[in-house]
Amino acid sequence: TQNYRITLLPGDGIGPEIMAVAVDVLKVVGKQFDLKFEFQEALIGGAAIDATGEPLPSATLDTCRNSDAVLLAAIGGYKWDSLPSNLRPEAGLLGLRAGLGLFANLRPAKILPQLIDASTLKREVVEGVDIMVVRELTGGIYFGKPKGIFATETGEKRGVNTMVYSESEIERIGRVAFEAARKRGGKLCSVDKANVLEVSQLWRDRIIQLSQEYPDIELSHLYVDNAAMQLVRSPKQFDTIVTGNLFGDILSDAAAMLTGSIGMLPSASLGASGPGVFEPVHGSAPDIAGLDKANPLAQVLSAAMMLRYGLDQPKAADHIEQAVLQVLEQGDRTGDIISPGKNLLGCRAMGDALILA
Amino acid sequence: TQNYRITLLPGDGIGPEIMAVAVDVLKVVGKQFDLKFEFQEALIGGAAIDATGEPLPSATLDTCRNSDAVLLAAIGGYKWDSLPSNLRPEAGLLGLRAGLGLFANLRPAKILPQLIDASTLKREVVEGVDIMVVRELTGGIYFGKPKGIFATETGEKRGVNTMVYSESEIERIGRVAFEAARKRGGKLCSVDKANVLEVSQLWRDRIIQLSQEYPDIELSHLYVDNAAMQLVRSPKQFDTIVTGNLFGDILSDAAAMLTGSIGMLPSASLGASGPGVFEPVHGSAPDIAGLDKANPLAQVLSAAMMLRYGLDQPKAADHIEQAVLQVLEQGDRTGDIISPGKNLLGCRAMGDALILA
Ligand SMILES: CC(C)[C@H](C(=O)O)[C@@H](O)C(=O)O
Ligand SMILES: CC(C)[C@H](C(=O)O)[C@@H](O)C(=O)O
Repeated sequence: TQNYRITLLPGDGIGPEIMAVAVDVLKVVGKQFDLKFEFQEALIGGAAIDATGEPLPSATLDTCRNSDAVLLAAIGGYKWDSLPSNLRPEAGLLGLRAGLGLFANLRPAKILPQLIDASTLKREVVEGVDIMVVRELTGGIYFGKPKGIFATETGEKRGVNTMVYSESEIERIGRVAFEAARKRGGKLCSVDKANVLEVSQLWRDRIIQLSQEYPDIELSHLYVDNAAMQLVRSPKQFDTIVTGNLFGDILSDAAAMLTGSIGMLPSASLGASGPGVFEPVHGSAPDIAGLDKANPLAQVLSAAMMLRYGLDQPKAADHIEQAVLQVLEQGDRTGDIISPGKNLLGCRAMGDALILA
Repeated sequence: TQNYRITLLPGDGIGPEIMAVAVDVLKVVGKQFDLKFEFQEALIGGAAIDATGEPLPSATLDTCRNSDAVLLAAIGGYKWDSLPSNLRPEAGLLGLRAGLGLFANLRPAKILPQLIDASTLKREVVEGVDIMVVRELTGGIYFGKPKGIFATETGEKRGVNTMVYSESEIERIGRVAFEAARKRGGKLCSVDKANVLEVSQLWRDRIIQLSQEYPDIELSHLYVDNAAMQLVRSPKQFDTIVTGNLFGDILSDAAAMLTGSIGMLPSASLGASGPGVFEPVHGSAPDIAGLDKANPLAQVLSAAMMLRYGLDQPKAADHIEQAVLQVLEQGDRTGDIISPGKNLLGCRAMGDALILA
C-alpha cells in the first residue's frame, strides 16, 4: 500500500461541495489501486479570512508543505471584494503559489467529443482541440517590484507594476514546457510581446537557446495579440503553449472557453520539489453555492491530475478520467453543460454516478 | 470647398496597394461632398528603414504634424525582423503614436451581416456583435520606465518593463470612452486586473470616480482574463470596452477575430489636439504583397473613420461605409473573405467596384 498525505483546501462558494465529491472518488479509486490517502483540511481564501482575518494563515501553508499534494477547490466571492487587496481571497492564492514555489502552471484545454456542442465555436473549428498551456506562475508582473500606488511631485497618484523575468526563471519554465510538448504532440509555441517589451525579448532569446537541447520539438513564436486571435481563428494549430504569468492568465482562460465547458477543466501547479497544487480552472460560483447545482467534474479531473503529476500514479488517473468520459457518454450532465435529451444531475448525484461508473 | 491636407503613410507589404484604393475612393467622395484633399506621402516602417536607416524619420513626423489627418496602411515584414528592436518597423509606429500624442485608440469590431459565416463562432453567438474597444495608446507597459535588459549581481540577465498609469492618463482615456459609449449603446465595460495589479486598482478607482460625471452610462468592470473568456462566450454582452495599452492590444485583436474578417476592420488613434492616425487593424501581409490580392476594405473604412473622427465629415464617412456594404451585398469579395457563389476580385478591382457603388 502506498500512503499519501493530501491537503484539502475547499475554499469558498461551491468549493466544499465539489471537494466532497472529489474526495469520495479518490477514496474509491484508492481502494482499487491500493493507495491510502490521509486527508487533512485547511483554510484558504474567504473562509480563512472569516475565521482568522487572513486569506492564507501560516498554519495552512505549513499543512500544505507537510503533505504530498494539495487539492484546492475555489476561492473568492462578492463578500470579500471590498477588502484591501492584500487581505482578499486572491492574495491567499498568490501567497500559496509563492510559498510553495509553484512556478509551473499546466492548464489543459481539451474539447470532449460529448460536449462539443457546448462550444460557441463551430464544430469543425474546435473538434479535436487539445491544447496545453504552460504558464509561468511565480514571476512576471504578478510579483515584480517596484509595485504600488505612489504620489508624484504634482500630488497626482501613479500606479506601478513591474514585469520582470530573469534568464533562470525563463529557463526553468521553458524546460517544463519542452518536456510537456515531448509527451504530447511535439510542438511548442512560445508567446510573448517581443516586438515591444524587452522582458519578452529576453524571454524569446532564452527559449530559442534552450530549444537547442530539444531538437525533436518544433518551436514557434507568436506575439500575444496574435496568439489571442489565432486561438479564436484556428485553435487546432496549437499543441503546447508556453508563456509568462499574465499572458498565461489571459490565454489559458480564452483557450478554456473555446471548449465551452469551463466546468470541466482542471489545472496543476508544480514547483521544483515539494507538493503541487491541483485545482479547477473555474471559480467559486457564489451564486449557486450550497444549492447542489455545481459541476464537480473539473474538481474530480484535478484529482486525476494530482494522481498523474503529483503522485506519479498514472493508472489511477486514467481510471478517473475514464469514469468522467463514461458518465458523459451515458448522458449525465450538470446544469452548466446540460443539453436537450440529457439527464440533469445535481453535484452529489454526479458524484454518485462517477463512483458507479 | 473644404481643404484638407492628408499625410499618407503606405508603409510596407500590401500597404501601397490598399492605400492606392483608399486614395481613389477619397478623391471620388471628395468631389461629391465638395472636399479637397491635398495628399502628401511620407515614409514609415520598413520602407523608411530601407531608405533612411530609421523607422520614423523626423521628416515624416514633421509632415504628419503639418497635416489635418494621417492615413496609415501597414508596417513590418520578415525582412526587418532581425534588426535591433529600436530600429524595427514597430518602433516607427510606437514613435508615431508617442510623437503625435495619440492616447486614444478606437477599434470597432462589428460583424457585417454579409460576412457572418466567415466567423469561426456560431451565427447565433456573433449575429449583431458591435463592440468598440477604446484602448489607451501612449502609456502603460508600452512606454513605462525602467525598461530594458539588465545584468544582475550574479551575472544573469533580467528583462524589465514597467506598467504605469497616472490618474490623469486614466481620466483622459476614460472620458473618451464614456463619450464613445454615450454615442453608442450607453454601456461601458472597463477591463483591468485589479485583483492582482496596483496599477489596475488605481485604474478602476479613477474610472469609478469619473463615472459620477456620466450617470447615464452603465459602467461594469471585468478582469482581463474573464474579459478574454466573455468575448468568446457571449460577445453580444459588450458595447464599449475601455482598457490599457497592453490589455487593449490583446482584447481588440481577439474581438476583431470574432468577426472572422479582420481584413475589414479600421481603427482610429486620436490625441487631445492635432491630427489623428487612421489605419486598418490587419498587418502588412508580406506574403501577398504586390500580387493584387489584398483586401482594401479595412483601408477604405479607415479613410471613412478619418472623415468621421478626424475631419468631422460624417456624411462623407457614411457614404463610404454604404459603398462598402453595397459591394458586399452585390457579392464582391477579395480572397480573404470569399465564399461559394461570390465574385472573387483583386485589390484594384475591388476599388473600382467601390467607386461605381
Ligand atoms: C484569482 C487570480 C489571482 C488568478 C490569477 O490571476 O492568477 C486566477 O485568475 C487564475 O488564473 O488562477
Ligand atoms: C505592431 C505592434 C507594436 C502594435 C501594438 O502592439 O500596439 C500592434 O500590435 C497594434 O495593435 O497596433
